[in-house]
Amino acid sequence: MPTLNIERLSRDAFAPFGEVIALEGAKHYPINSGTTERFHALAAVDAATQGGTPYISLFRGQARALPLPITIMERHPLGSQAFVPLTQNTADEYLVVVAPPGEFDAGKLRAFLARGFEGVSYAKGVWHHPLIALHKTSDFVVVDRLGEGANCDEIELDGSLVLDASALQAAA
Amino acid sequence: MPTLNIERLSRDAFAPFGEVIALEGAKHYPINSGTTERFHALAAVDAATQGGTPYISLFRGQARALPLPITIMERHPLGSQAFVPLTQNTADEYLVVVAPPGEFDAGKLRAFLARGFEGVSYAKGVWHHPLIALHKTSDFVVVDRLGEGANCDEIELDGSLVLDASALQAAA
Repeated sequence: MPTLNIERLSRDAFAPFGEVIALEGAKHYPINSGTTERFHALAAVDAATQGGTPYISLFRGQARALPLPITIMERHPLGSQAFVPLTQNTADEYLVVVAPPGEFDAGKLRAFLARGFEGVSYAKGVWHHPLIALHKTSDFVVVDRLGEGANCDEIELDGSLVLDASALQAAA
Repeated sequence: MPTLNIERLSRDAFAPFGEVIALEGAKHYPINSGTTERFHALAAVDAATQGGTPYISLFRGQARALPLPITIMERHPLGSQAFVPLTQNTADEYLVVVAPPGEFDAGKLRAFLARGFEGVSYAKGVWHHPLIALHKTSDFVVVDRLGEGANCDEIELDGSLVLDASALQAAA
């Protein structure tokens, strides 16, 4: 079976797909008379299309086992969707699988390893795999759009492309 | 010195000031072929006034010591501001101090003890104290409005009203 290469998540590599939410490299400054540090504007929330409203939810993802065949991808044509891991433990990891917006092209699939607090915000229309938590049940703060209009397209794949443990190891 | 009563945070008690972000009592359902549980729409983000955009930031609050005189309150007239603790440890606590929107009235100040993952979203215009982390440096995912317009009013108080440890104990 062909396996998908897994890259370490980085702002540069992920830029075509949205924003990486991370403290390293973020603008930050003291507020509240110096008692709080604000790590500012880690990601924008794009939810206003067709009068949508952004909401804060929580996703609790079961740990997925590898190898994992990629059988489904989805996109939200009306808004961004951000995932912020509810952890700062760098032993906690999850996988992000994306493809560019527009007509789905399996040849352009890319996979990223995210670790600890590192989050992602999928830009509007970016194809992405449903949440792939690793190792243990994992909680994510999710900020996405609710409102009128069809905001979820899904596409089925034949599962011939696989996420496997050796690719994960190579990315670590 | 007069001390402010501290109440345990609850949806009912906090309703005049915004939303409590909590899993208990939230609507939830399986998604992603049953591999993820979605705790849905824990809080709305109100950021569209005057063309504002919601952003995800992170606040890192130093632990504040009690007794803490209340010397400042602030409000955001153009949008909500949500604080989601980056923890699920119920030993982690912080204090929320609020007063109703409109003309500030120190006689209407209320304080709440929040614990573990419990977050709050201050509604537009609700007076609130800057972040009061307890016990240790604490991180919060913050979702608030950026954009044109003056979105922070502050008011100074004389510090005669105090948050103290005995009131915290009583709320615990």
